[in-house]
Amino acid sequence: MAYQPVTRLYVEASLGEGGSLGLAAPQAHYLKSVMRLGKGDELALFNGRDGEYRARIAGLGRGWCSLDILGLRCPQRDDGDLWLAFAPIKRARLDFLVEKATELGVSEIHPVMTARTMVARVNAERLRANAVEAAEQSERLSVPAVHEPVKLAQLLKAWPPARRLILCDESGSAPPLAQALNGLSPAPCAILTGPEGGFADSELDDLRKLPFVCPVGLGPRVLRADTAALAALAAFQALAGDWSRDRPR
Amino acid sequence: MAYQPVTRLYVEASLGEGGSLGLAAPQAHYLKSVMRLGKGDELALFNGRDGEYRARIAGLGRGWCSLDILGLRCPQRDDGDLWLAFAPIKRARLDFLVEKATELGVSEIHPVMTARTMVARVNAERLRANAVEAAEQSERLSVPAVHEPVKLAQLLKAWPPARRLILCDESGSAPPLAQALNGLSPAPCAILTGPEGGFADSELDDLRKLPFVCPVGLGPRVLRADTAALAALAAFQALAGDWSRDRPR
Repeated sequence: MAYQPVTRLYVEASLGEGGSLGLAAPQAHYLKSVMRLGKGDELALFNGRDGEYRARIAGLGRGWCSLDILGLRCPQRDDGDLWLAFAPIKRARLDFLVEKATELGVSEIHPVMTARTMVARVNAERLRANAVEAAEQSERLSVPAVHEPVKLAQLLKAWPPARRLILCDESGSAPPLAQALNGLSPAPCAILTGPEGGFADSELDDLRKLPFVCPVGLGPRVLRADTAALAALAAFQALAGDWSRDRPR
Repeated sequence: MAYQPVTRLYVEASLGEGGSLGLAAPQAHYLKSVMRLGKGDELALFNGRDGEYRARIAGLGRGWCSLDILGLRCPQRDDGDLWLAFAPIKRARLDFLVEKATELGVSEIHPVMTARTMVARVNAERLRANAVEAAEQSERLSVPAVHEPVKLAQLLKAWPPARRLILCDESGSAPPLAQALNGLSPAPCAILTGPEGGFADSELDDLRKLPFVCPVGLGPRVLRADTAALAALAAFQALAGDWSRDRPR
């Protein structure tokens, strides 16, 4: 079956059959100038709460677009509950990481400043825009929440103790991911990856002492920080996450 | 333990203690102008056959560098036997994919032209350069072989029947990867991913008829072509590949 893509837009407004909606200028521009849509064309809308709706362009001009909301296309579903906490990396790789993490089903993104993190500032707004775009393209019905960066100590202090923190431990001393996950009781999880230079010894020591931390190894090769995050997410979803669920359409 | 990186270079020449070596101009430039190394500084060399050797810069100038080969740093090891066959994608994403595939332990890279592949040409030389760089940075002792692109039918016609071809099947009808791999007999494997528009129906039909093909699903979300390849590689290595092996140093 060939997959027939439809233009999908994430909006913040409530969605319901028979309603109507005005789009912000960037989305109007995208529909008109990038997707070359016009009055009468259909697209799909989702907002993370109400499911996905068909919509028809009622009017479209320079910087504005009004839409009529038609029927429900897909009821809201649970896109999963998996957090990613990671030490930020350089901009191009960070954009890529957020895109991939969104495709791989992350529900919350937590940039974390560690001792060896070389990136001083994170533009959370830009990361949110990347997450929205990836959600639109990956058929998700939700967009991951992108948090403002916090220091590692802060993150751990405020950590919800019922959530398992899977520590990607590059020191070589942790059991392989598959072995570490095998036989663990079901719990909401988060994956934590360090910066290019790795976690500091003192950070690893502190992390390993926490009852909710589960250190795992990611194989015999040295992985870049972004590769480690993507690889851990994919392996987690395949082993213990939602990859056993069927494609919804 | 903080990881102390050393500059690593892939060379084609044979390596052995007491030998010496001249570098090509781009590598000499890299050592001098990027890494700011000079006469007497040490680095590491590997060639995919002889293991990794320490080497010392005997002389360095504009476009040339001579090295004295010192002792063995790490004996040659098997970097694994996993192929990646994929429909080529746009340049930036392709570079990224080759980098990540190298880090994830791929031994051969096969670009494959499918019915819906939108990329007309692949610069295999550039991909090789990316693979070399990623191998240098990921502590591999080998560089994946990058093949010239072939049509899917050609690839399948020449396929070694003892090698399992894990087909990333976006149609939603294949069992999840973990389930599909569970209980399979050990065999050398390859992962095959399609282009952005997916495989054509006829391609999927042909593939599914082949005895060495094992279709797998990659979860409930639509993945970009590059994400699918990376995610499948990571999940494979975690489940059935070499992630159970310890980090060598």
